[in-house]
Amino acid sequence: MPGDGDGDARGLEAAAAAAAEAARELREAAAALVATRAAEEDALRRRAVALDADVRRLQGSLPALDPSAVDKIEEELERARVAITDSDVASFLPSKRNGKFFKMFLGPVNVRVARKEDKLKIKDEYNNYRDRTAYKFLLFPSILLLLRWWIWDGCLPAWAVQIYQAWLLFLYTSFALRENVLIANGSDIRPWWIYHHYLAMVMALISLTWEIKGQPDCSSKQRGVQLFLRWAIMQGIAMHLQNRYQRQRLRTRIALGKAKRMDVVAGETAGVEGQLLLLYPVLFILQGFEAYVGVLLLQTALHGLASEWQVVVCGILLVVMAVGNFVNTVETLILKLRFKAKMKKAKGRQDRPHQN
Amino acid sequence: MPGDGDGDARGLEAAAAAAAEAARELREAAAALVATRAAEEDALRRRAVALDADVRRLQGSLPALDPSAVDKIEEELERARVAITDSDVASFLPSKRNGKFFKMFLGPVNVRVARKEDKLKIKDEYNNYRDRTAYKFLLFPSILLLLRWWIWDGCLPAWAVQIYQAWLLFLYTSFALRENVLIANGSDIRPWWIYHHYLAMVMALISLTWEIKGQPDCSSKQRGVQLFLRWAIMQGIAMHLQNRYQRQRLRTRIALGKAKRMDVVAGETAGVEGQLLLLYPVLFILQGFEAYVGVLLLQTALHGLASEWQVVVCGILLVVMAVGNFVNTVETLILKLRFKAKMKKAKGRQDRPHQN
Repeated sequence: MPGDGDGDARGLEAAAAAAAEAARELREAAAALVATRAAEEDALRRRAVALDADVRRLQGSLPALDPSAVDKIEEELERARVAITDSDVASFLPSKRNGKFFKMFLGPVNVRVARKEDKLKIKDEYNNYRDRTAYKFLLFPSILLLLRWWIWDGCLPAWAVQIYQAWLLFLYTSFALRENVLIANGSDIRPWWIYHHYLAMVMALISLTWEIKGQPDCSSKQRGVQLFLRWAIMQGIAMHLQNRYQRQRLRTRIALGKAKRMDVVAGETAGVEGQLLLLYPVLFILQGFEAYVGVLLLQTALHGLASEWQVVVCGILLVVMAVGNFVNTVETLILKLRFKAKMKKAKGRQDRPHQN
Repeated sequence: MPGDGDGDARGLEAAAAAAAEAARELREAAAALVATRAAEEDALRRRAVALDADVRRLQGSLPALDPSAVDKIEEELERARVAITDSDVASFLPSKRNGKFFKMFLGPVNVRVARKEDKLKIKDEYNNYRDRTAYKFLLFPSILLLLRWWIWDGCLPAWAVQIYQAWLLFLYTSFALRENVLIANGSDIRPWWIYHHYLAMVMALISLTWEIKGQPDCSSKQRGVQLFLRWAIMQGIAMHLQNRYQRQRLRTRIALGKAKRMDVVAGETAGVEGQLLLLYPVLFILQGFEAYVGVLLLQTALHGLASEWQVVVCGILLVVMAVGNFVNTVETLILKLRFKAKMKKAKGRQDRPHQN
């Protein structure tokens, strides 16, 4: 054997042995770090859980008090709550378990992030996703209706509608999954908006199986599809308005220290006074139109123009979603007005000269 | 104001102030812990990355050596590699970024778990999911074919097939997402098996839009569906065999220290000698049958019996999947045989009396 090769081999052998030794040491160090970390985290977790329970208990005993004494205590407790939930402490509180929907798709994987910055990144990405989606929500049906009038001679080809429906199915699935991730990370999004996405998924899936063959009587068969596309365009516009208000409102609330930044405030609770006067009417019109499309589908089915079960189920789903959206929007509006009245009262008290 | 209420209020006020103060302290403690932890982790991460690069560099220089000198060095390096990848060290190596597919559905959320136990939990859950799914994969099409013969008079109703197709769409989406999570956690599953699930998703989606109306000529129209259901039953049986072999093999490999436990070994690489003689023929027959169903669909389309584009695309997809599965199974088989030959050689060397 040539001496050079032998030397190389010996050098490599020593290097390999050194690497194996270093790897062993590193393994020990990593195991030790993980163990210490777990112990430290456990200690902090215990403190966080105890304090969290304390604050809740104190908040629970407030209603028994004389209202005039409540305000200052409420403020202190609110400050404690924000210090717990809007800081690194939050990541030490026991995590909410993944929702059933999420587990169905992904199993028990942990999507909870530890660091506050990462939480904000998730929230930010969700908002950006909503923004990007709102454009597509506006463009996709607009293009379909435009081509229908311009090229397709008043009759949409099945494949074009089906691509749109498949996209909707993907979109609602993605929204539902992302919102499950937000909830696992401490967001207090209203449950209805997630249920709404589940229902929308079911509708997209069912509409995929729906024959919308053009000839011979395209216009009566596609009337529902057309109405749905128009509704989708309106929905796209409303999403844009919502997204703008949400961001503005969230920024304001964060500045005031009133909100954990993980709150996904349903667009319906938008904050900037003047803009509200535009947003709420648009939302109510949208919901009315959604219910109208649903009722129309049910009527077509009743009059025997389209006998497929898909028509009936989609009609019912649209009506249910419209009613649910309406109820939740109104509930949010009431909460909002009540909060505003309370703020006004508090301000009035502050302005009044101190009398004790 | 009654004195009692006043005392209560003062007590509560003190408690609330104490809670707010405790929350402030806890916030500082949590921030400090997170910061120290980040620094310690960074230090360990730097060591892990450097060592990992070392081992790779050494492994890269092996082929230039005289083969007789390689074995011992290879063994040391393998030991170092296992100490890095199959311990807590792995969680400090920079993470693979989420695949495009995963990001499309969930955004940039982190699904990488830090602790080794959690990784094993994910892997275990994935295996359990495959087991549960294999039963359904066997039962669902069996029930459909049984009811077709028993109740439905030789003609499947569209809704039953569509529920099955929707279930397949969900299933393949779920598999693809879960496998993306496994990859993010260091599994070395062959990329083809994930692509395969993407293709299967597309096929399930397309088949949902496929009219399989019964009358007037049900049997010729549903011939493709029937074949597909039979193929699915075979697939269910093959999945059962695969799952059993995979578990057994993984257990053996872990015992031998040859595998990171996160490896999802495609079932096709099952390890137990005698069982292989059953599994590989079943897999090849399955792939042949898959290609046959695909070609048959293409033929029906060519002869004008079914003119929908869905028939053509599903036919092409089935053929592509069959060919891809075949190529990957053969590749795995070759790797396996080569590994076996090498082991034999190594054993032969050990048995021979030492001659230097």
